[in-house]
Amino acid sequence: MKFSELVENLNSEIIGQSLTDHPTLNPEILGVAAVDEATSGTLSYIEGLKFASFVQRSSASALILPLDESLQVQATEQGKAWISVANPRLVFAEVITLFYQPYQPQPSIHPSAVIDPTAKIGSAVYIGPHVVIQAGVTLGNQVCLHPNVVIYPDVTIGDRSILHANCTIHERAQIGCDCVIHSGAVIGAEGFGFVPTASGWMKMEQSGITVLEDGVEVGCNSTIDRPAVGETRIGKATKLDNLVHIGHGCTVGQNCAFAAQVGLAGGVTVGNGVLLAGQVGIANQVKVGDRAIITAQSGVHNDIPAAEIFSGSPAILNKLYLKTAAIYKRLPELYQSLKALERHFNHPV
Amino acid sequence: MKFSELVENLNSEIIGQSLTDHPTLNPEILGVAAVDEATSGTLSYIEGLKFASFVQRSSASALILPLDESLQVQATEQGKAWISVANPRLVFAEVITLFYQPYQPQPSIHPSAVIDPTAKIGSAVYIGPHVVIQAGVTLGNQVCLHPNVVIYPDVTIGDRSILHANCTIHERAQIGCDCVIHSGAVIGAEGFGFVPTASGWMKMEQSGITVLEDGVEVGCNSTIDRPAVGETRIGKATKLDNLVHIGHGCTVGQNCAFAAQVGLAGGVTVGNGVLLAGQVGIANQVKVGDRAIITAQSGVHNDIPAAEIFSGSPAILNKLYLKTAAIYKRLPELYQSLKALERHFNHPV
Amino acid sequence: MKFSELVENLNSEIIGQSLTDHPTLNPEILGVAAVDEATSGTLSYIEGLKFASFVQRSSASALILPLDESLQVQATEQGKAWISVANPRLVFAEVITLFYQPYQPQPSIHPSAVIDPTAKIGSAVYIGPHVVIQAGVTLGNQVCLHPNVVIYPDVTIGDRSILHANCTIHERAQIGCDCVIHSGAVIGAEGFGFVPTASGWMKMEQSGITVLEDGVEVGCNSTIDRPAVGETRIGKATKLDNLVHIGHGCTVGQNCAFAAQVGLAGGVTVGNGVLLAGQVGIANQVKVGDRAIITAQSGVHNDIPAAEIFSGSPAILNKLYLKTAAIYKRLPELYQSLKALERHFNHPV
Repeated sequence: MKFSELVENLNSEIIGQSLTDHPTLNPEILGVAAVDEATSGTLSYIEGLKFASFVQRSSASALILPLDESLQVQATEQGKAWISVANPRLVFAEVITLFYQPYQPQPSIHPSAVIDPTAKIGSAVYIGPHVVIQAGVTLGNQVCLHPNVVIYPDVTIGDRSILHANCTIHERAQIGCDCVIHSGAVIGAEGFGFVPTASGWMKMEQSGITVLEDGVEVGCNSTIDRPAVGETRIGKATKLDNLVHIGHGCTVGQNCAFAAQVGLAGGVTVGNGVLLAGQVGIANQVKVGDRAIITAQSGVHNDIPAAEIFSGSPAILNKLYLKTAAIYKRLPELYQSLKALERHFNHPV
Repeated sequence: MKFSELVENLNSEIIGQSLTDHPTLNPEILGVAAVDEATSGTLSYIEGLKFASFVQRSSASALILPLDESLQVQATEQGKAWISVANPRLVFAEVITLFYQPYQPQPSIHPSAVIDPTAKIGSAVYIGPHVVIQAGVTLGNQVCLHPNVVIYPDVTIGDRSILHANCTIHERAQIGCDCVIHSGAVIGAEGFGFVPTASGWMKMEQSGITVLEDGVEVGCNSTIDRPAVGETRIGKATKLDNLVHIGHGCTVGQNCAFAAQVGLAGGVTVGNGVLLAGQVGIANQVKVGDRAIITAQSGVHNDIPAAEIFSGSPAILNKLYLKTAAIYKRLPELYQSLKALERHFNHPV
Repeated sequence: MKFSELVENLNSEIIGQSLTDHPTLNPEILGVAAVDEATSGTLSYIEGLKFASFVQRSSASALILPLDESLQVQATEQGKAWISVANPRLVFAEVITLFYQPYQPQPSIHPSAVIDPTAKIGSAVYIGPHVVIQAGVTLGNQVCLHPNVVIYPDVTIGDRSILHANCTIHERAQIGCDCVIHSGAVIGAEGFGFVPTASGWMKMEQSGITVLEDGVEVGCNSTIDRPAVGETRIGKATKLDNLVHIGHGCTVGQNCAFAAQVGLAGGVTVGNGVLLAGQVGIANQVKVGDRAIITAQSGVHNDIPAAEIFSGSPAILNKLYLKTAAIYKRLPELYQSLKALERHFNHPV
């Protein structure tokens, strides 16, 4: 499609565009690409001034620019069509949808699926080959169960939720509407509950449930356990990446994002809008306040106040961490300084 | 059921109870709950004095208390029925079983399961839909294979073991009695054995086996590899949480517990009763002594003596770690002190 | 087989052997074993002088030795047959193949597999029970799909690649020849792409693809995501262990090896021949040079030059890390020294 056509099709607010001044700068756009991999005929985006050099270096025929006049001038000079918007990455996300429709199977129930007669199945669902649905399950409308998904008894799944291949939903789990469970994830399995006794570990039955509120996404091969009593709960619109572990009895708020390989031990409480970077670990019963950010590989053993950034293992305020990490690298030098002082003063320590 | 009835049904030793002095304090108990989420009609427990304030704050109608007279008095004053026991958490685990029966499918073999004719199948087994059992497999009595489990050739599984959905057991693995393999776990796959050569990696065939002794539990999506020669072995009653990795040729003792996301490289030897907290990593060939405890996110590169607590990456004695971690936070301050001393004495360093 | 027969069957270059001087030292070899577990009748190997004591302590009847005359003399004195080679581990890998043939199902297509009629299937393939192959998939010759594998639409899989049970390959992924995907791995799922907006997370469609070049191995339950645009690519002959996460848009070179539980965030570029030890994490957009080595649990936030060893979180040059880690353990002592100096000089800090 022509660049002009593409621009007309966008719902996002366009604040400036090359077409206004250069109506003939109207290339055919064949697809989208990352700015450093773009070829002629593709459209890409410049997230911010940090990537300004790509206006010249990229081979893209058109660019989504931030609100910066000098970038606009450069783009025009390079013969690139452009639009300027408040949030280029967001608009790029919209542009992708003009060129790409995600794979979505047509509603149908494959004859090889094994569905208990007591299950209640909504309308327009897709149930792929070899899916297993046990007794008492309720599926909403337009639910999509990819091949080899297994649903244990008494699970509820809300409208339009998508469960990818080979994932497993355990007994009594409640999954809201518009959730996406990626391949291999396991929701609502028994929490790790063993009581030490003189004769070894005694298993504590995990009679609770796991609840995913609407719009939750769970990454591939992630695991969210159910507790002995009560609930493990993931709040509305929270997104979990791959290989994340959420222990029994955790409560995670709304609109959080947890990167890959994050692990929450048992009974952790996380507020709304919290960001956990990759491989973060949080210990039993810790509380993390709203909008806190924990940087990669941090280990959290104490409660985290709202809206603060924490780092390190054990985690401390990021501001302090940056200083300590800088000095950590200089420990050998500090050690030499200290020893030199001691020698100089014949100090007996 | 009435509280009095519940108390009569317990096998645990009850050391004191409100019914003795207050036979009319006998509420109807409808279920069990965590002490901070309990509602009227539920029974909960106070694990220790740390949670004493919940005797007043909880809405539970009955409590399992530790052996503490003041808590008993408080509970009675609050109109709560109670029992006092040596290990409240253990008794709570027993009480859960009065209200909750875990899901256990009836013995049956689903017609969609594909079972090689050479497999030997015990009595009273459950083999769910789409299970695959290859040649030479032996299943004990009352084994439960949930849907979509895949068993490679020549595997042995002991009586009463439960394999949850979508897990995979590789060739020649030996799984004992009363084991639980949670959804998505992979047992006995090829170890990561590649020999560097001038022309790239040469694969070393993994001809060994993986052995799980009786009573082992393996968490969701955990992986336990087999070695090039010999065995990878997990000892009796050892419990592994989710997303744990056990490399080829490891030997883990009895009654250990490994929290989520722990990783053991190749050839690690772990004694009996060892506790590894979340995200711990242990390097190739390391030996960990009996009853050692390694705290969360520690990285172990050297052998660990029996019954010691280790922490940090690289791991050091926990006692020392607590001191160093405390000073680590004060590094910027120490740095300033050192620089001030140097300035004061015009020290040339 | 006789030791002499075994030696004749090897393709590896044999530099010395006991048979030359002691033609009667020719035991029957029944199998292979690790040197510390070897029993009479087995052959084992001594990787290097570090394991020299096992020449005496091992019960193996025959040994593969490095090029060291004293080990040869010791072995002969112990009545052990031996060969001496440049790389004992490599030759041991060859010897294993004389005693062990890995499980490889015969070419066949199980009737329970669900194969879209538009899929193109090569010759001599194995497609196990309950495999699902969606529309537009192309399988090369001698491809082996173990039970319950799910292939989304438009995937290409090259000749002789093996996909183990319960793994999932997502839409449009391209898998080369001679790849091995271990059980439960997920290739080409949607990257973790969410754009923050005032009204919550907006999903960025992941229109890109994942490409595995020839000879790649992916460990059990590992996950390799596809990007919003462009490719996630794993280079020829690179080997990934279990529970590894590769984020959207990463480019990994050839002949790398990543140990278990490694995580790469989005857009990471890794050169050729890079070694990442267990639980390493690499942040968004970082570049790692050829032949770099990152030691276990390191956290990499900045680019890593070629052929260097880095360690720690945040990662620094290994040489420096070893010094800082040594001093880290002595921080309490340093702190005391500093305070003593301050006290001594009544320094006001």
